[in-house]
Amino acid sequence: MKKWRCTVCGYIHEGPTPPDTCPICGVGPEDFEEVVEEPKAAQTAVPSAPAGATGNVGPVPGGNQRDAIFKIEYGLFVATSRKDGRFNGQVCNTVFQITSEPQRVAVALNKNNLTNEFVKASGLVTISVLGKDNFPDIKRFGYQTGHKVDKFEGFTYGVSATNGLPVLLNAVAYLDLKIDPALVMDVGTHTLFIGDVVDGGLIKGGDPITYSYYRANRR
Amino acid sequence: MKKWRCTVCGYIHEGPTPPDTCPICGVGPEDFEEVVEEPKAAQTAVPSAPAGATGNVGPVPGGNQRDAIFKIEYGLFVATSRKDGRFNGQVCNTVFQITSEPQRVAVALNKNNLTNEFVKASGLVTISVLGKDNFPDIKRFGYQTGHKVDKFEGFTYGVSATNGLPVLLNAVAYLDLKIDPALVMDVGTHTLFIGDVVDGGLIKGGDPITYSYYRANRR
Repeated sequence: MKKWRCTVCGYIHEGPTPPDTCPICGVGPEDFEEVVEEPKAAQTAVPSAPAGATGNVGPVPGGNQRDAIFKIEYGLFVATSRKDGRFNGQVCNTVFQITSEPQRVAVALNKNNLTNEFVKASGLVTISVLGKDNFPDIKRFGYQTGHKVDKFEGFTYGVSATNGLPVLLNAVAYLDLKIDPALVMDVGTHTLFIGDVVDGGLIKGGDPITYSYYRANRR
Repeated sequence: MKKWRCTVCGYIHEGPTPPDTCPICGVGPEDFEEVVEEPKAAQTAVPSAPAGATGNVGPVPGGNQRDAIFKIEYGLFVATSRKDGRFNGQVCNTVFQITSEPQRVAVALNKNNLTNEFVKASGLVTISVLGKDNFPDIKRFGYQTGHKVDKFEGFTYGVSATNGLPVLLNAVAYLDLKIDPALVMDVGTHTLFIGDVVDGGLIKGGDPITYSYYRANRR
């Protein structure tokens, strides 16, 4: 079976062809590349410092930014929003705090995703921080698109205290963000939304999962 | 012994008073708060769904965004740059890919840090992705400031293939970023730099560490 890697977020898909949509970051098949195992020349060419040497010991090989970029660690989240009385949500991995005064968090969402459109319309997004109990939720919110299905049909959820947006009851914690329109940045395939944390709380508590943990443990 | 938590990045300091500078994100003592253990009321008040129920089962308590925000997972990195022929570097936790075409990565650096000034001056930053072998490097690059010491004195390092900036020889991988001046955003205490990945490679390879792993395993 062939393996295909999402060049945006590192998601690995197994099958004869790449998937229609990356379940994590939402890009299409054109952003997948076939995974071909090859010897990592760079790993053996890093200079080794002579004992006692200090300072610059020489150049470290480049030319392999693809592999390097997948060494960045991320958490895993479901971002929810609403438009015209309808909810939608999606899996994402790029959520991070930027400042504490005021408390601001950034979220990057693919422009092709319905949730991106909903966040732009409502100015609100709620983040459920995923833990080990959320694997089925990743399938629901990551492996299908709100353009075609209602992801909340038959799903049991709570609503957040201030935004009133869906929260996953099995999640570790959640954050209500109010987006500052002056801090919405078009960064190419994605929009970077920077929002004030207006509310939040623990749900089940415990340890959040990382994206690499999910990749290693799914199925 | 009292415990103090950095309200920006969650770093825990033990001592009678908060530290002068957070070793991870660079904020001052005014951004630390004393850690007081208290019962997490929110954890017990989350609605439990009756068996078979679907849809909205009610509000999830808020009011605890401080605890929720520390459930966001991050990797751990050393960012290096230069100005007027001098190198500097700092530990940071907010590095993340934003788009793949072009390959762009964002880095948030505290404005008080010397590295922030160097990145603005040179338009270049190189990211070493930290692994389990980098604990001593976190002390060197996180627990002191380039405003007072030369962090590279007596240190053995390589230089990156394109930026020519210092790379940690014990790191997992590295990325050379060229900052797009149009994509530098003032977000309050920090500057968000968005850069094109112009080079990179594996160094030691293996698994990167998360910030929570570091917090649990240091000393």
